[in-house]
Amino acid sequence: MVKLIALYKKPSDIEAFDKHYAEVHMPLTSKMPGLKKVEISRIKGSPMGASEYHVMAEMYFENMEALKSSMSSPEGRASGKDLMGFAKDVVCMMIAEVEETAPVAALN
Amino acid sequence: MVKLIALYKKPSDIEAFDKHYAEVHMPLTSKMPGLKKVEISRIKGSPMGASEYHVMAEMYFENMEALKSSMSSPEGRASGKDLMGFAKDVVCMMIAEVEETAPVAALN
Repeated sequence: MVKLIALYKKPSDIEAFDKHYAEVHMPLTSKMPGLKKVEISRIKGSPMGASEYHVMAEMYFENMEALKSSMSSPEGRASGKDLMGFAKDVVCMMIAEVEETAPVAALN
Repeated sequence: MVKLIALYKKPSDIEAFDKHYAEVHMPLTSKMPGLKKVEISRIKGSPMGASEYHVMAEMYFENMEALKSSMSSPEGRASGKDLMGFAKDVVCMMIAEVEETAPVAALN
């Protein structure tokens, strides 16, 4: 499994950001072909206190080819264009291979 | 579900980092009480090319109380102490609420 990660720093207008994210960006992103799962994480802080980050979205695909094909599809381009319009200054994108998803019993 | 996220920038000595991570840090972390799942993601790049990040570890707990209790346990402190010893300059820690884990069918 691979994933496309979008990590957002706190935007200047959190309410407007959250509204656009929920009402426009997520519906566009959810149309991307080959998308297996989306996990949205609301950053609440860090072990040291506050965090500069606001939210992280993880979009899972079967493999790297499926991820890249989806990103270059019309739906992927529409999501990317929207992203650059509302979050260019706060988003960091990463592409990752999910190496291990282990229950604790398997780790110990 | 909540998670503790450790996002690491590329270390100066990747080989030494990966070795310590696999042989020392992960075994320590996997002993943390209440840990439900660990997902390790190897950052391969970004849609724009390279990424400054190397790896992301996500440690899942049932709820915020379980996460905080685990972090302050002897096992949690041992993991934290080890982390500060080998990755203080490259790690960013976040605590997040996992708001949504949805299959695409539910999103569309």
